[in-house]
Amino acid sequence: MTEIIRSLQNPRIKQAVQLRNARKRRELDLMVIDGVREIQQAIQAGIEIKEIFALEEQDSSENEHRKAFTQLNMTFVSEPVMERLAYGERNVPYVAIAKQPSLLLRTLKPRDRRSNSVLESEPGLILVIDRVEKPGNLGAMLRTADAVGVSAVLLSDPICEVWNPNAIRSSLGAIFQVPIATASSEAVIDWLREQKFQILAARLQASETYRKVSLQNKVAIVVGSEAEGLGSKWIQDSIEGIRLPMQGSVDSLNVSVSAAILLYDAANRMDWFTTER
Amino acid sequence: MTEIIRSLQNPRIKQAVQLRNARKRRELDLMVIDGVREIQQAIQAGIEIKEIFALEEQDSSENEHRKAFTQLNMTFVSEPVMERLAYGERNVPYVAIAKQPSLLLRTLKPRDRRSNSVLESEPGLILVIDRVEKPGNLGAMLRTADAVGVSAVLLSDPICEVWNPNAIRSSLGAIFQVPIATASSEAVIDWLREQKFQILAARLQASETYRKVSLQNKVAIVVGSEAEGLGSKWIQDSIEGIRLPMQGSVDSLNVSVSAAILLYDAANRMDWFTTER
Repeated sequence: MTEIIRSLQNPRIKQAVQLRNARKRRELDLMVIDGVREIQQAIQAGIEIKEIFALEEQDSSENEHRKAFTQLNMTFVSEPVMERLAYGERNVPYVAIAKQPSLLLRTLKPRDRRSNSVLESEPGLILVIDRVEKPGNLGAMLRTADAVGVSAVLLSDPICEVWNPNAIRSSLGAIFQVPIATASSEAVIDWLREQKFQILAARLQASETYRKVSLQNKVAIVVGSEAEGLGSKWIQDSIEGIRLPMQGSVDSLNVSVSAAILLYDAANRMDWFTTER
Repeated sequence: MTEIIRSLQNPRIKQAVQLRNARKRRELDLMVIDGVREIQQAIQAGIEIKEIFALEEQDSSENEHRKAFTQLNMTFVSEPVMERLAYGERNVPYVAIAKQPSLLLRTLKPRDRRSNSVLESEPGLILVIDRVEKPGNLGAMLRTADAVGVSAVLLSDPICEVWNPNAIRSSLGAIFQVPIATASSEAVIDWLREQKFQILAARLQASETYRKVSLQNKVAIVVGSEAEGLGSKWIQDSIEGIRLPMQGSVDSLNVSVSAAILLYDAANRMDWFTTER
């Protein structure tokens, strides 16, 4: 007989609920993943799953997932317990606790669009997000970056937490598939220069529009924070400024929209979509 | 002395609060606009403002707006009253009640990118959003559409309400600047054909990628609902299907991201950004 946890006072449930707190996540080096698709993506990416809580009664389509998860440490819980675990998210029949992967720049392994290996001479396309504030925007950008098949996403001086459950959720799990690193702006700029990336920084005040800039073999596109744009480190002579033309009444685009337009344009012009499904 | 409303029982406050309900808005043909920028955009667009509620004590930067609004019917309210009016939105010192503009397709006046007049021979760029469900996505797409300077946005069989306060807010007020009409898919398709628009429908299953399609002088880009994609009316021989290449683990892009990529690409290839600021 499978054990079903029905008590909110169960110590494992209490610990899992505590992980909704960012400080607690940092302290324990753990994160919370909501949703079947997101958990599957994490498993596929080799993330270390500590445990999976599953709702006791689920329809047959959910049972398919159950089979996929059974090798893992899965625990069934009652509906009130799952409601507490899912923390306001509706219709989440699975919640996983997992170890946070490394975000160190020095251990970053950018993926190659063909072989998943890294070759110095290969083309590269990187998205840099400076001082990102909103987990939802971070997740949205990771989703797009994954669709484009970028080599990596670098977060310079991030303000929000990378492993925030909302970032995971709004990435649809793409957060686990894209190589990600965080570092200071200086460290990110140094790394990009060492790796010979052309750095294109999106700024409202840039003189060149994005389509007028010639692209090299390795391109890094930098977008700034929602409220304040790019930090001062990104505004210097050796970094090319690019802007999106606008002719409406509103003077800016959403950061995830800007990132998507710039990534797709660069990918097309670089002939990046070679392994397209 | 200026009168300040301090009672939640005041009939005008009660009516304004009722307008947070979609049915009530439809019944009275009114809408609620939160925020200074959004109200300014509505005024600039010639929307009929019924009244503006303003928080009694505001800092000097807000007082600038106050001056701009004084010709209008402005009423000061206490903080608890504003909290009630703003309905969960924080830091909204102004809430306006306004008449809903017409959304009829037969009275739609697409804007010309140069003169704001409509010329048959002029190029045209239209965004069609089929069965949009989420006000936040609608607002985001209107914001991008406004930045691109589209001729109009057509909503075929919309599921969410156009004048939902969240749509207004997430458009940053662009919703008032872009010509918008709603109609059935059939009526929208008929109208686009009459106006000689090339119709490009974004679908995951389309055989052609978007950059391979030659663009004509007048282009309508159609994106589908968040959950279900395009309705069956949009899948027919005389409508060209286009898709965005993807090579990640996630098999779709957010609808507002897709719309942005397609609009910017079309606008660039059509040489659309002539009046760019």
